[in-house]
Amino acid sequence: MTQFTAHDAKMMALAIRLAEKGQYTTSPNPNVGCVITDSQGHIIGQGWHKKAGTAHAEIHALAEAGEQANGATAYVTLEPCSHHGRTGPCAQALLNAGIKRVVAAMVDPNPLVAGNGLKKLNAAGVEVSSGLLENEAKRLNRGFIKRMTTGQPWVTVKLASSLDGKTALHNGLSQWITGPLARQDVQRHRARSCAILSGSGTVLADNPSLTVRHSELGFAMEDIAIDELRQPSRVLLDGRNQMHPDLHLFSLSSPIVLINSQLNSAEFPSHVEQYQAKSKGAQLDLQDVMQHLGQRGFNSVWVEAGAKLAGALLQNKLIDELILYQAPKLLGDKGRDLFAVDELTQMQQAFALQWSDVRHVGPDLKLTAYFT
Amino acid sequence: MTQFTAHDAKMMALAIRLAEKGQYTTSPNPNVGCVITDSQGHIIGQGWHKKAGTAHAEIHALAEAGEQANGATAYVTLEPCSHHGRTGPCAQALLNAGIKRVVAAMVDPNPLVAGNGLKKLNAAGVEVSSGLLENEAKRLNRGFIKRMTTGQPWVTVKLASSLDGKTALHNGLSQWITGPLARQDVQRHRARSCAILSGSGTVLADNPSLTVRHSELGFAMEDIAIDELRQPSRVLLDGRNQMHPDLHLFSLSSPIVLINSQLNSAEFPSHVEQYQAKSKGAQLDLQDVMQHLGQRGFNSVWVEAGAKLAGALLQNKLIDELILYQAPKLLGDKGRDLFAVDELTQMQQAFALQWSDVRHVGPDLKLTAYFT
Repeated sequence: MTQFTAHDAKMMALAIRLAEKGQYTTSPNPNVGCVITDSQGHIIGQGWHKKAGTAHAEIHALAEAGEQANGATAYVTLEPCSHHGRTGPCAQALLNAGIKRVVAAMVDPNPLVAGNGLKKLNAAGVEVSSGLLENEAKRLNRGFIKRMTTGQPWVTVKLASSLDGKTALHNGLSQWITGPLARQDVQRHRARSCAILSGSGTVLADNPSLTVRHSELGFAMEDIAIDELRQPSRVLLDGRNQMHPDLHLFSLSSPIVLINSQLNSAEFPSHVEQYQAKSKGAQLDLQDVMQHLGQRGFNSVWVEAGAKLAGALLQNKLIDELILYQAPKLLGDKGRDLFAVDELTQMQQAFALQWSDVRHVGPDLKLTAYFT
Repeated sequence: MTQFTAHDAKMMALAIRLAEKGQYTTSPNPNVGCVITDSQGHIIGQGWHKKAGTAHAEIHALAEAGEQANGATAYVTLEPCSHHGRTGPCAQALLNAGIKRVVAAMVDPNPLVAGNGLKKLNAAGVEVSSGLLENEAKRLNRGFIKRMTTGQPWVTVKLASSLDGKTALHNGLSQWITGPLARQDVQRHRARSCAILSGSGTVLADNPSLTVRHSELGFAMEDIAIDELRQPSRVLLDGRNQMHPDLHLFSLSSPIVLINSQLNSAEFPSHVEQYQAKSKGAQLDLQDVMQHLGQRGFNSVWVEAGAKLAGALLQNKLIDELILYQAPKLLGDKGRDLFAVDELTQMQQAFALQWSDVRHVGPDLKLTAYFT
């Protein structure tokens, strides 16, 4: 195993911080950061990837380093690419600049190309190593990694409930269970996601926009590529073809993917695309839906749905992460539930999670957990 | 307002730590700690109250200080008593020992006697003050304070649920939603309570003992009066007179208060007392129940009940504190709910809480909240 120094770790931590700046804008590309240091360990170049189709992190850092890059060390959060994409291979650019040592946090998650960038560099005489702060780097690109390895996006289901697990009163009233800070937090999660997914039931009941109010991102507006902010795509599951063009969300121009079992013949605006998923009657095959969303290049899908769709995703084991905003309130047994699933008859059938994060967000608790 | 020094605060903090040692054993008496310092501020005596009927904290501390108490300062977490109880007034004992200054964290919560102990001391030439670390001292004796000021005990409802607010499967299975550390934590809460309250539904369904397994108190066994540990009383609400002597809990000898609307004519063992509460049919008047429990000297009641009783206490605004152990699991909408209450029709009717503590207990979350 390669031994890394404390200085190496410090430089990689900085590269990861740089990579994080791209989390609102790089998709479908991964977040990548790069730091270049001279032989004394001084930082001579920094870069991060802002947006697909624009320069990669390494190119920005090399540009800043200029001729000093000759003989220098490059820290990158992801193995430099070796293929000709829209912007040319970074491995070659590092070689051309005379970089002597490359430290990567992780190799390319695509199993078909993993390691090729480092191999190419090594074959050309560069000292290469990887695995420094690997978990941290992987966490940042978990959506990209999942899509590269399984073809499907990372799925986060967001729900808001009372302490006794109710999302709304029996009559459907739910505004507002959680406070404004929790709702602002949701805006940031939406903004980081490639797509926001919801079901026709929720859309018909609430007539939402499912867009990001960028003005509400608050402190998250600092330190990102503000001019590159984009609206996530909106994905609507509509097994019964209940969507119609008069709904509010169709009047907003960000892309919509309308997923049904049969083509909806209504006239939708041009930013609406349809996909007919596999299905049993009105029951859409959610595996096929996720496969399709992966093919569209969505790394991460943020689900805001009712108990039925949330429950169906749960039963189909399609949820990677649950984010539950819990308000310090009780609504009682008559309220609406979080997950509609088939009756369990044994405790071992319970859907198990693993805590990732527990924190206060204003008056509410934000619970983040992974499915195990 | 009296100015206290940092040394004063340090001594009172120690007195509170001493008082805490009594939390498993002093009821119905309050937890009290006392520290005596000489004119240089050195500690010359410490004491804490262990059990009703035995010496108060001040007496223990005076005994340790001996003749050095002459001219010394006494820090007490509760105003020294001035009345002749089972053990004689502490105010007089402090005077007799020649104490020159008394600092109390709080005055006696009984509004009829509050301040009398300090007045008596002051009239005899002692410098008195109170209010140092008052909130901390009040927190320790919140049950005693509530009973002294309202006649009713402090009521904590404990529940355990999945993340989606379900206490059991539809078929009633619930073993085990939470892990062994959460269950051990419950044992400590039970042990600190004056009484454990449950309903006949829960008793008939689970046939529990509702006693403390002292062997499971774990680290809580340190630093307390182990030889004085007692079983909390058990209070059973049985509006329909469904309790019968064959149930497991009647075979254990710790006291039971059986509360019903009409005398249960079955032959119960001698450790079972009955109380006929006000009622409408089988519906017990829960206010009357709590008043009765206060009259019995219960400072704190720990409720382990099903959704019906928990919901009835909630609707009657009789819960002071909720402790919810939340397992990282989902059981789905068919599972059993936490609180059965009448349907709410507006969000403003939601029962509001205020967070007190959020922590991990093994794999589970322990949420503690007060009703506002």
